[in-house]
Amino acid sequence: MRIAYVGPKNREAALQAFVSPGVTVEARPHGKGPRSIESMWEEYLSVPGLLESVVELEREGFDAVVPGCFGDPGIDAARELVSIPVLGPGATSMVVAANLGHRFSVVTVLENVVRPLENLALLTGVAPKLASVRQIGIPVLELNSDPERTFQRLLDISREVIVEDRADVLILGCGTLSFRAAEAQEALGVPVLNPLQVTLRMAELLVSCGLSHSKLSHPIPPKLVAVPVS
Amino acid sequence: MRIAYVGPKNREAALQAFVSPGVTVEARPHGKGPRSIESMWEEYLSVPGLLESVVELEREGFDAVVPGCFGDPGIDAARELVSIPVLGPGATSMVVAANLGHRFSVVTVLENVVRPLENLALLTGVAPKLASVRQIGIPVLELNSDPERTFQRLLDISREVIVEDRADVLILGCGTLSFRAAEAQEALGVPVLNPLQVTLRMAELLVSCGLSHSKLSHPIPPKLVAVPVS
Amino acid sequence: MRIAYVGPKNREAALQAFVSPGVTVEARPHGKGPRSIESMWEEYLSVPGLLESVVELEREGFDAVVPGCFGDPGIDAARELVSIPVLGPGATSMVVAANLGHRFSVVTVLENVVRPLENLALLTGVAPKLASVRQIGIPVLELNSDPERTFQRLLDISREVIVEDRADVLILGCGTLSFRAAEAQEALGVPVLNPLQVTLRMAELLVSCGLSHSKLSHPIPPKLVAVPVS
Amino acid sequence: MRIAYVGPKNREAALQAFVSPGVTVEARPHGKGPRSIESMWEEYLSVPGLLESVVELEREGFDAVVPGCFGDPGIDAARELVSIPVLGPGATSMVVAANLGHRFSVVTVLENVVRPLENLALLTGVAPKLASVRQIGIPVLELNSDPERTFQRLLDISREVIVEDRADVLILGCGTLSFRAAEAQEALGVPVLNPLQVTLRMAELLVSCGLSHSKLSHPIPPKLVAVPVS
Amino acid sequence: MRIAYVGPKNREAALQAFVSPGVTVEARPHGKGPRSIESMWEEYLSVPGLLESVVELEREGFDAVVPGCFGDPGIDAARELVSIPVLGPGATSMVVAANLGHRFSVVTVLENVVRPLENLALLTGVAPKLASVRQIGIPVLELNSDPERTFQRLLDISREVIVEDRADVLILGCGTLSFRAAEAQEALGVPVLNPLQVTLRMAELLVSCGLSHSKLSHPIPPKLVAVPVS
Amino acid sequence: MRIAYVGPKNREAALQAFVSPGVTVEARPHGKGPRSIESMWEEYLSVPGLLESVVELEREGFDAVVPGCFGDPGIDAARELVSIPVLGPGATSMVVAANLGHRFSVVTVLENVVRPLENLALLTGVAPKLASVRQIGIPVLELNSDPERTFQRLLDISREVIVEDRADVLILGCGTLSFRAAEAQEALGVPVLNPLQVTLRMAELLVSCGLSHSKLSHPIPPKLVAVPVS
Repeated sequence: MRIAYVGPKNREAALQAFVSPGVTVEARPHGKGPRSIESMWEEYLSVPGLLESVVELEREGFDAVVPGCFGDPGIDAARELVSIPVLGPGATSMVVAANLGHRFSVVTVLENVVRPLENLALLTGVAPKLASVRQIGIPVLELNSDPERTFQRLLDISREVIVEDRADVLILGCGTLSFRAAEAQEALGVPVLNPLQVTLRMAELLVSCGLSHSKLSHPIPPKLVAVPVS
Repeated sequence: MRIAYVGPKNREAALQAFVSPGVTVEARPHGKGPRSIESMWEEYLSVPGLLESVVELEREGFDAVVPGCFGDPGIDAARELVSIPVLGPGATSMVVAANLGHRFSVVTVLENVVRPLENLALLTGVAPKLASVRQIGIPVLELNSDPERTFQRLLDISREVIVEDRADVLILGCGTLSFRAAEAQEALGVPVLNPLQVTLRMAELLVSCGLSHSKLSHPIPPKLVAVPVS
Repeated sequence: MRIAYVGPKNREAALQAFVSPGVTVEARPHGKGPRSIESMWEEYLSVPGLLESVVELEREGFDAVVPGCFGDPGIDAARELVSIPVLGPGATSMVVAANLGHRFSVVTVLENVVRPLENLALLTGVAPKLASVRQIGIPVLELNSDPERTFQRLLDISREVIVEDRADVLILGCGTLSFRAAEAQEALGVPVLNPLQVTLRMAELLVSCGLSHSKLSHPIPPKLVAVPVS
Repeated sequence: MRIAYVGPKNREAALQAFVSPGVTVEARPHGKGPRSIESMWEEYLSVPGLLESVVELEREGFDAVVPGCFGDPGIDAARELVSIPVLGPGATSMVVAANLGHRFSVVTVLENVVRPLENLALLTGVAPKLASVRQIGIPVLELNSDPERTFQRLLDISREVIVEDRADVLILGCGTLSFRAAEAQEALGVPVLNPLQVTLRMAELLVSCGLSHSKLSHPIPPKLVAVPVS
Repeated sequence: MRIAYVGPKNREAALQAFVSPGVTVEARPHGKGPRSIESMWEEYLSVPGLLESVVELEREGFDAVVPGCFGDPGIDAARELVSIPVLGPGATSMVVAANLGHRFSVVTVLENVVRPLENLALLTGVAPKLASVRQIGIPVLELNSDPERTFQRLLDISREVIVEDRADVLILGCGTLSFRAAEAQEALGVPVLNPLQVTLRMAELLVSCGLSHSKLSHPIPPKLVAVPVS
Repeated sequence: MRIAYVGPKNREAALQAFVSPGVTVEARPHGKGPRSIESMWEEYLSVPGLLESVVELEREGFDAVVPGCFGDPGIDAARELVSIPVLGPGATSMVVAANLGHRFSVVTVLENVVRPLENLALLTGVAPKLASVRQIGIPVLELNSDPERTFQRLLDISREVIVEDRADVLILGCGTLSFRAAEAQEALGVPVLNPLQVTLRMAELLVSCGLSHSKLSHPIPPKLVAVPVS
């Protein structure tokens, strides 16, 4: 089984470690959008490149595609264009979280994506389970300057989310930090999801069960329907 | 007051007839997306051009922008980029409809947009008022070949929507047909909204009241925030 | 176009300033209810006079009616009696606010109307967008004794609403104070709606679009249906 | 215990039969509203008389008040004015129905009250349990001309409600017909509530438990708060 | 009328005091489950004994059954097995509370039951009315060691619930403490429900109205349907 | 990795075929409940045996437990007793279905479980995505007498669900039939989930990601917390 991750090549090894033996993860950045995504503006700019990429990846024989952006931009359109599973890390980690506790929260980095992530929970159908979306309030430029301070801040906000918003499951919706989910889980005593890990495994689950998104829900665009030749 | 309509130039005269004396509507197609929008795929492809266009239109001194696509693609991103009101005809006609009756329905042309419009009602916050989204089931290519048959079909579906889905207000979410809203209202005996007309007037309303979308809800993307020079 | 405002004559000039050139606002108090409305009790007592008045105003040729009370008492009944638009400032400003941000709050004066306004949002169908209804906690008798202190208190509560309830759009649901919406918007940096201004402009919008409330949703009372003479 | 029923005197004996030994039901029409209530217009016109009456009934020493109109007009205001329980037959039968099955429907007579009763379920907080509100489609004037045909029609609609709307509990929200609830229950095999009977017994329940509506939720109107004399 | 309370014999006298003259409450512990219920684990273990008991109680001629556990475990199954009303104190007090104010809270003892009680409100259909479920944070073993300190703690939490969660009606979902509902109501100034008292009276209400749960909603298990003998 | 399936031994081979290489599925019937589960009554009777079994299976070193009953009885209690993942096939297939389309339906065999499954969707937090729960209307005894007729009936009902309820993803919530999910998917053209297959793979996903249910949401019962010895 081959799963394409649409995102930076330098994450490939880390992601490969997440999947089952016999499954290959290939990082395939499309290279046509903004360098990073911190707003709805950049989410949209990243989509045309993603859509071209998804079609190409299906043609190349990949079994599933996992775009890297946690906000899931363009997933609905990508699903119109291909039959193989296309899974957004936002929606996918949310549905898994919904099955692990009473209420989950997303802890993220950027104020700009807080409201869009609330909307994503609404569209995914799990809003009744969403306790909150919170951001850790550290300017992006300072995020990596002191990783331990950033991680500590993540734990502080997570504890607030658990006590004040009464979340009992957490999703780390914030790039590099998500790779520290296991450490955070250890420190906090509640399940903490790494969205990319969960989404790659969900891709495996769907492929192995012969499942994909519904073409009734995501029909092929009329202009792309093959015209029968008489 | 000058309102920019982002859509085909040949609608300009019709739209000008919808606004108050002293208000100018200028049609400003951005010319960079697909020729028509019949799927989520095309919605996304239309957004980058729209976003460039909206920034330019604000710079040119327009007081408000009304993108033409009923599905409202990219409105949230456009609002991040400018301060003048950017109003989607989908969300705008839905909130007006919510204030006119107990339950509204959208009648549209394409199966592909039925589910996305249900999602739009959810995001706009008026899902409790949505009776249904229905499409008239005529292939796009045949829509204009027999306009009267198409209009008749619209009335038939509208009557089903009123009786079966218990809608008491209708929105015509379907391009050319929306210009026949007044006729449909006459025939059906319930309010029938032309989304573009309603949205242009809502743009007037906001400008005259000194209102626009919230920059707290749609903050400027971090990368675009001006760096103060010391 | 002539719009009737059902409320005190001394507001007429201020309201006239809110509408388009060519539109006339006439204040027409019905004079039959309580002197002010601070409870559900007084809301109901104000309705019979309002209903008589609305019928009379339609007969006189007004194009739309805007009752002045923010709680919208009797709007549903008034809509049964006439065909011209009858627009409550509560519901109308709520649907406009829903289209400007992610979540709106109403800031009002009286504890007694907090819960009824939450109910109004529920009935209007925009409850998913309501962040909160809050009151400023100043006894009515002291409201006008020190207008600047009252305004300052309004700003304080508004800031709490923005931070604690995460509202990004505000509606001033409180009589005289609503006329200071523009000042409040300037000070707070989020859209602040003056309900009467927004509602008068919405009346214009509907009349110019040939729209009114649905008679299917608000049918003529059976006893008032004309009996055909054989 | 003495319970006042605000409605026609000729129902007194029938209502007396519904309550426990030792409880007295007194019918006390206020005689100031419309002769019958078939619209929101008439609902509102009935309220001022009801409110005067409720205050008087508390003064006379009644333990609880049950206004007769199923649409519950003015209940919220009446609760502001008195401390004894004021119970509307609409909301009261809805909460009891919610506890007896998975989904309930209201079967009523008049098209005009269908949407208002849906709103009542929303305000009462039991909308998730409401399957539908349906009316039997017989003109009011013909209702009593052939009672058996009307009852048969009631059963027919009730069966549709059970099969099509998947209701498993019914409320008869329709005047005289409600007195045939037991017969309908016998014929239909699902619980059928007579709202007045249920509401009188709920009044007993509250009085015997020392409970009434919350004065925090329904506070005394500021103008009626006694001014302390220094 | 005879009502069976499935719970400890030593509460019988107190419960008898709650019902109407002529009604008998008999305490009938089934003696087969855990000694006390402080978790979902114990809730389930208590159900098989309850179900046997309910069938037996119907056979003995009881008119209604009120299981004692506030979490309502097994009520849905018990309703499948008998025709007489089976009423859980949790759901029953919630629907009564929904009719007395704008929002109710449950104050309970154990952290373990907080989330299950939120679920119970969801299933009962009154979640829109639930302000919160809160526990008083005193270890079970210390509850009775200092009853006045416990009661004081109950009042403190109740006041927080009223101010912070904006509840205006309270339900005491906590065993022995519930018997002090009247005192708490006196101290707090909002309605405070004793679930057992309310539920016993609701049992009376249903029996006197000839009502019970719907057998369409709670059908007899197929294996128990009598096989006709040819 | 070893996953325990709590259900009939004769399904072991079929289930083993569903999991990844290196994963073992062991069928471990607890043998203490009813022979089959067709009602809430039997669901509850099956739980005490399940709970004992789950504790034992954790002790034996299993990595996850999948109880076989689609209604998920006792899952919440089982999660209180152990730390390894306990996954119900009902909730698990629902969250996966929510991520594959716009609306899913469950097709099942028994009328008795239709309403309970609607409740399960509510508690799982995906009710906004549930189109319907429908049963195929064949008496249990006749289910296996003519498997092809039964399968045909399943397809017929599924098509109704797709057209009338507008579902675009299906879950086969019905024992033996669920093993024909792939065939049904082939015939219907929408994703059709086999709940056991999906749930076993979800168990793998969780174990491989180091995740389990939240102990904050499902705390250890107080009586089972180890008492420290002084």
